[in-house]
Amino acid sequence: MLKPLGDRVIVTVDKEEEKTVGGIVLANNAKEKPQTAEVVAVGEGSITEDGKTLPMHIKVGDKVLFDKYAGSNVKFDDTDYLILHEKDIMAIVEK
Amino acid sequence: MLKPLGDRVIVTVDKEEEKTVGGIVLANNAKEKPQTAEVVAVGEGSITEDGKTLPMHIKVGDKVLFDKYAGSNVKFDDTDYLILHEKDIMAIVEK
Amino acid sequence: MLKPLGDRVIVTVDKEEEKTVGGIVLANNAKEKPQTAEVVAVGEGSITEDGKTLPMHIKVGDKVLFDKYAGSNVKFDDTDYLILHEKDIMAIVEK
Amino acid sequence: MLKPLGDRVIVTVDKEEEKTVGGIVLANNAKEKPQTAEVVAVGEGSITEDGKTLPMHIKVGDKVLFDKYAGSNVKFDDTDYLILHEKDIMAIVEK
Amino acid sequence: MLKPLGDRVIVTVDKEEEKTVGGIVLANNAKEKPQTAEVVAVGEGSITEDGKTLPMHIKVGDKVLFDKYAGSNVKFDDTDYLILHEKDIMAIVEK
Amino acid sequence: MLKPLGDRVIVTVDKEEEKTVGGIVLANNAKEKPQTAEVVAVGEGSITEDGKTLPMHIKVGDKVLFDKYAGSNVKFDDTDYLILHEKDIMAIVEK
Amino acid sequence: MLKPLGDRVIVTVDKEEEKTVGGIVLANNAKEKPQTAEVVAVGEGSITEDGKTLPMHIKVGDKVLFDKYAGSNVKFDDTDYLILHEKDIMAIVEK
Repeated sequence: MLKPLGDRVIVTVDKEEEKTVGGIVLANNAKEKPQTAEVVAVGEGSITEDGKTLPMHIKVGDKVLFDKYAGSNVKFDDTDYLILHEKDIMAIVEK
Repeated sequence: MLKPLGDRVIVTVDKEEEKTVGGIVLANNAKEKPQTAEVVAVGEGSITEDGKTLPMHIKVGDKVLFDKYAGSNVKFDDTDYLILHEKDIMAIVEK
Repeated sequence: MLKPLGDRVIVTVDKEEEKTVGGIVLANNAKEKPQTAEVVAVGEGSITEDGKTLPMHIKVGDKVLFDKYAGSNVKFDDTDYLILHEKDIMAIVEK
Repeated sequence: MLKPLGDRVIVTVDKEEEKTVGGIVLANNAKEKPQTAEVVAVGEGSITEDGKTLPMHIKVGDKVLFDKYAGSNVKFDDTDYLILHEKDIMAIVEK
Repeated sequence: MLKPLGDRVIVTVDKEEEKTVGGIVLANNAKEKPQTAEVVAVGEGSITEDGKTLPMHIKVGDKVLFDKYAGSNVKFDDTDYLILHEKDIMAIVEK
Repeated sequence: MLKPLGDRVIVTVDKEEEKTVGGIVLANNAKEKPQTAEVVAVGEGSITEDGKTLPMHIKVGDKVLFDKYAGSNVKFDDTDYLILHEKDIMAIVEK
Repeated sequence: MLKPLGDRVIVTVDKEEEKTVGGIVLANNAKEKPQTAEVVAVGEGSITEDGKTLPMHIKVGDKVLFDKYAGSNVKFDDTDYLILHEKDIMAIVEK
């Protein structure tokens, strides 16, 4: 498994739901691609200049809304992940 | 519902009022698109280098004037939201 | 009314005085457009990393000289305002 | 009069002395335009993150040498001024 | 041997596994080039403004996932190394 | 005389020595123009956020090697000077 | 001799070894030009905001591996030197 460093969070991005009209799959336009993801791993937090670790606000299992221009896509063990800094997570989706 | 992180604020941007002349809807020019919005959710505040949380000055229900070049548009549960950092809110519209 | 946040200041920019020669209005060139304004609202001050509020040096009613490349123009209740950060105000015009 | 804010300094730039050869005025090339000025007003000093005011090193009446790419030109009461931050003043011209 | 300075980490990037179809080697496309590496040397940690050394979170022998746009390639004693700052290591690959 | 402010240093750049071959003056190429200078005036030192003055390491009379892309050329009393920040001085030439 | 200021280090870059095939000198391609050098002089260390000097980790005689895009080339007393900040030295080559 991947153990993120610092304030990084590893997520799996939600699949786009297909929109169908009478059974025909419609292409979604680019502006609506999903920005929600599920958190699968969380770092220990960023380190301040004083050597203290700032606690994370995100935990494994959270559903999150992320900044679409942020993060690095990685493929690991045939799964696609997105690795984000916590500051690039805009909101938690509450159930 | 969406729970914003850090100093983020989630708003719904005010609809442009249609200007009508004798019942005919007039197009507004781009320069006058609304910069006011209603706050629907507020984060806990940004974290300083010392790990302290700075309190927010905005609260849910506030009507705000925001910097038109700021924020990220997101669609969630078929509603359009704008997610802003508190620093991008220029003023509160007082009733 | 608008209540500015942080170290922001809301001003109304002075109107250009028309120059007339024998009653004919002369166009002013761009270099001489007014950079003076009257302060109509003032924020509480910017917040430091320690959570302290730095006091403002500008007050409502001040006539100020501002950096012409700074600020955001907003229209509110049919009035044009300019919203500036206090650091973009270069000088107070003393009477 | 103009009262500069923060670490700003208001100066009047020295006039270029005309060079004459046998009574004929010679154009100076751009590289030699004056970078000296007389200080006519001085701010109270910049404010640190802790809210302290750092004292100014420049006083009214000083003749200064300034960075030619710095400052804002303003016209006020028909006089041309240059408004500089103290850090853009490179040296004091001592008599 | 190379002894990295500050928060630097020296790694050897994993070789791309060849994908074969019926014994024929297939070219991998650029998007899938490996981002995993093995750590061969670790610096003492970065120095803060106060002169303290922040401890490293990476140790020799760790398998790491790194930011593909980071680091400097060096050749030393006929071996290719990548020298990274610890902040450019996104995650540790746990066995 | 010029009294530099902050951590500034005023220098006179060394003249290029002419290279002659059998009495013929050879043009030097641009890469070899002098980067050494003599210090003629030194500021009091830069001011920290706490209002303290950091002492200078350069003194009048020092021969210094400077970063060739740094500094402002000024002409004062018909002499050419270069005004540098102390951080742009790379080394002192010791006799 | 040159005495570097702050956290600067003066080095002499290693000569490229010529590769020969059967006595014929082969041109090396640009990607393999040496990034190793010998340290000939070391500054006293950089000064923090508090006026403290941070000690250097490099000493005269060290063989170092440096970032190939860093440093200033200078010629002094007919010798070519490279002046680097300590942060641009990636590793010490240990014997």
